[in-house]
Amino acid sequence: MALKVGLVSRLDDQRAIEVAATLARQLRKKGTVVIPEIELARRGRLGGGRDLTDLKADLIVTVGGNGTVLKTCMTIPDPGTPILAVNMGRRGYLTEVDPRQAQRAVQLFMSGKCMLEKRGKLAVYLNGNHVVDALNEVVVSSGSPSKMLDLRLSLGSQPLLQSRGDGIIVSTATGSTAYALSAGGPVVDYAIDAFIITFICPLEFLRPRVVSMDRSLSIDLMDQKLRALIVADGRFHRELTKGVKLVIRKAGHSAVFVRIGAETPLGGLMRLRETERAGL
Amino acid sequence: MALKVGLVSRLDDQRAIEVAATLARQLRKKGTVVIPEIELARRGRLGGGRDLTDLKADLIVTVGGNGTVLKTCMTIPDPGTPILAVNMGRRGYLTEVDPRQAQRAVQLFMSGKCMLEKRGKLAVYLNGNHVVDALNEVVVSSGSPSKMLDLRLSLGSQPLLQSRGDGIIVSTATGSTAYALSAGGPVVDYAIDAFIITFICPLEFLRPRVVSMDRSLSIDLMDQKLRALIVADGRFHRELTKGVKLVIRKAGHSAVFVRIGAETPLGGLMRLRETERAGL
Amino acid sequence: MALKVGLVSRLDDQRAIEVAATLARQLRKKGTVVIPEIELARRGRLGGGRDLTDLKADLIVTVGGNGTVLKTCMTIPDPGTPILAVNMGRRGYLTEVDPRQAQRAVQLFMSGKCMLEKRGKLAVYLNGNHVVDALNEVVVSSGSPSKMLDLRLSLGSQPLLQSRGDGIIVSTATGSTAYALSAGGPVVDYAIDAFIITFICPLEFLRPRVVSMDRSLSIDLMDQKLRALIVADGRFHRELTKGVKLVIRKAGHSAVFVRIGAETPLGGLMRLRETERAGL
Amino acid sequence: MALKVGLVSRLDDQRAIEVAATLARQLRKKGTVVIPEIELARRGRLGGGRDLTDLKADLIVTVGGNGTVLKTCMTIPDPGTPILAVNMGRRGYLTEVDPRQAQRAVQLFMSGKCMLEKRGKLAVYLNGNHVVDALNEVVVSSGSPSKMLDLRLSLGSQPLLQSRGDGIIVSTATGSTAYALSAGGPVVDYAIDAFIITFICPLEFLRPRVVSMDRSLSIDLMDQKLRALIVADGRFHRELTKGVKLVIRKAGHSAVFVRIGAETPLGGLMRLRETERAGL
Repeated sequence: MALKVGLVSRLDDQRAIEVAATLARQLRKKGTVVIPEIELARRGRLGGGRDLTDLKADLIVTVGGNGTVLKTCMTIPDPGTPILAVNMGRRGYLTEVDPRQAQRAVQLFMSGKCMLEKRGKLAVYLNGNHVVDALNEVVVSSGSPSKMLDLRLSLGSQPLLQSRGDGIIVSTATGSTAYALSAGGPVVDYAIDAFIITFICPLEFLRPRVVSMDRSLSIDLMDQKLRALIVADGRFHRELTKGVKLVIRKAGHSAVFVRIGAETPLGGLMRLRETERAGL
Repeated sequence: MALKVGLVSRLDDQRAIEVAATLARQLRKKGTVVIPEIELARRGRLGGGRDLTDLKADLIVTVGGNGTVLKTCMTIPDPGTPILAVNMGRRGYLTEVDPRQAQRAVQLFMSGKCMLEKRGKLAVYLNGNHVVDALNEVVVSSGSPSKMLDLRLSLGSQPLLQSRGDGIIVSTATGSTAYALSAGGPVVDYAIDAFIITFICPLEFLRPRVVSMDRSLSIDLMDQKLRALIVADGRFHRELTKGVKLVIRKAGHSAVFVRIGAETPLGGLMRLRETERAGL
Repeated sequence: MALKVGLVSRLDDQRAIEVAATLARQLRKKGTVVIPEIELARRGRLGGGRDLTDLKADLIVTVGGNGTVLKTCMTIPDPGTPILAVNMGRRGYLTEVDPRQAQRAVQLFMSGKCMLEKRGKLAVYLNGNHVVDALNEVVVSSGSPSKMLDLRLSLGSQPLLQSRGDGIIVSTATGSTAYALSAGGPVVDYAIDAFIITFICPLEFLRPRVVSMDRSLSIDLMDQKLRALIVADGRFHRELTKGVKLVIRKAGHSAVFVRIGAETPLGGLMRLRETERAGL
Repeated sequence: MALKVGLVSRLDDQRAIEVAATLARQLRKKGTVVIPEIELARRGRLGGGRDLTDLKADLIVTVGGNGTVLKTCMTIPDPGTPILAVNMGRRGYLTEVDPRQAQRAVQLFMSGKCMLEKRGKLAVYLNGNHVVDALNEVVVSSGSPSKMLDLRLSLGSQPLLQSRGDGIIVSTATGSTAYALSAGGPVVDYAIDAFIITFICPLEFLRPRVVSMDRSLSIDLMDQKLRALIVADGRFHRELTKGVKLVIRKAGHSAVFVRIGAETPLGGLMRLRETERAGL
């Protein structure tokens, strides 16, 4: 039975839309069922579009950068769908192939000649309700510039630490090379499942923490008057007020990325390295 | 001729108001002319109050913490008026005496038995207009959480560097132990007149800069769509949009603080030390 | 059958020797077999001493600080022997009870009313030969002041990164609050088995790495002329020259520490916290 | 009257020697008096060599990298002699021109068409005797690996701070982009005369200090048993034992560097930037 390939593109980049549309036509010509995200379908005149929240497929190809990958991960109905990330700009730490390699990479996936890399995610709960999963990080920051947050962190039911400052970043190993790196966090191997807690401009100096995900991490706002913002993967926003319970756990599903060729677990660490080089 | 003493208090702390009111009565009993800030006059039933923007005196006594000192410095009509800072909480890095020493400290000032310590300030210009002076720092930060700023800094007319991230802090030596310290900046001797530039969560790693104030420092927002916030000393707020010219220079006036007893320039560095101990 | 208790003391602290000797007499009075380390036996006139390399027991009590614990861990013939660490100075991050609690803690151990906490260690190999296990860290540093080392790190057979500078620290989670913390490393949960790689004054800026122990970590000296020093837990010293193969793996044995009372895994992280407070 | 040009070369780089020898012949052909350093004279068959300690000239040209500049600065009899630094490798932060520009740069100097940039230095005193001047930094570090130093710093006669750890770096603004940068120090404008104090792996976290050179900086070793090493500019070595008084002051002479073309004081900061880019 034929595999179904979902297709998602960065929408503010005409080149990405064209790369995606071309790839759709090539794959369809070979008989593959391609389901484009609905707005991509419209702009690329591809037909058969589906809303991203409803995009079920055996493989999802994203065309764009890290942002397109993060949006796809957060929104697709089955978070365990393998993602093949085509990169349109400078090499992102989440993307895998450039546009010229895209068609062949899909074929490698179809013939099983690729590696699937699992990456742990963070499940975010507000007052006991699961609201979103994050691949990179959950940030709690001050909603009012020049007002410090006073946050208390607990592991399970036991207090861990209290921190005043501009906020905190709870990231996965994947997110350790994203925003957490800018805030001074360590680079963590994808093979390690841990909460990486990095403090943004803390009043009292605190080193980053790398904490086992065996228990849940709770974050409480200590100040009555201030409000804080919760931002997951740069795109999910909520307010945190005193009394609201924010809890972060290891998510039930992992993200799954298609890796081509000689990629090995070590590849992950080399990739981190490239990111660092590029960034620093 | 009798000296005039201005009096300013933290207004959200009833103890501070009482300390200030008591001091006013003690000084008036001895014949000193005391001019309280208008809201303090009302709450402490002192009479003769003046708005802070209109408070002219030979000495201004502040009762509160660092925030009260910063507000007074920024608002009084003659920025060169000596300030004696009475501390109500844990020892601040800007305050000098505790409440029990306040009356005696005023007398030491009157008899000339004290040191006056000058501290350089930053003059902030928007599109060529001088808008405020800051004692601690000028912060340019993102107005939208999870949106990075792209800022270009120039010295005089020459480009210095470009930085993407959550923002930058331009501080004085005085401000080097305030917000800039939380962002990773060095501790700088009060005797050094310099722009201390510290980067908030920079995407590309940048060390803090300590730059001579001989020339003006310009900060340009490179992104059309984003807006940034300018905050001076935590209390003056303006928006920065593309095309608005933000320039920071050494201010024409210094703040002047009354130092009691054996205080010497080294006192400043010891004081930094205490702050660090307390904070870290 | 009666349990045998080994006893080790800091030897340059007469108080520690006295505490150890008193404990030995108390335990022997109750019929416990106590085997003191040989030099402690001599100085405390206890009799029955054994060399530390030959000290076999069901429990080993150390009296001193972190250094005494590290020496004992590294030297005893069965590295899995439970260690109860009595603290003589300010609270160490490896010690558990103060002298007054020591006798009762031994009894709690005997009656099984304590927790045993396992801590992963690093096994060090030189040219394929296992030379020592380290509980805290293995440091590779320059043997010549003001000469930089050029080191290449590999995971398994794949290159990881290259770093020039004063050296590197490979630590366990336990060691993350020791020397690695001073060099800027993160604080890592004891529950996480990882190589924490921290760079000492690197010429090219490199963030600390937290890397899975699934594969071995090799460190190669790139420079023909320089020699480097390998120091494990501050007490095992070897020279590293070009061509010598230094490999670090997860050790086959863990250290085992006796924890008294309500201690839980979270206790570890709180303990880190205290250390940080004390240190910072 | 003809100007005399001294000539110094890196001696472990045959290309540098050849560049220097060629330059000597070109200048002599035009009638310039060239005095090569004695070993360069021998190897380049130039004749007329002088020991570096005895090299008096109107201009000294160095051919090599930063190390050659530092050696020359530290050794020449008149430390105020202008230095034109020819770079043989990747652009150093102390060097100015590449070999092809060298002859023309000498002519620009002779005709007065260049800028002379002064850089402050550190004068090092041991027990009251001036022993050396340093352009970059003075490092006090542990002579025994894995033994921490306990150092007390004073400004004038007043205690400043105490630090335990691997050592401290006292640098100039020039040296702020050298070793101090690796240890986490800020980048400081050449126009600022200050002691920049950076701590190497401090046990108790301490931020870098930027301190006015108005007073002398004393460093005392607190531990009886340990010895420390003093290293100035990576090439002057002495031992520091308890009781020996190490004092650092602003040196009486500045180093003087020849800058060609449109170089302005801002050039210095741009140069720092390049160094950072290269290094990070």
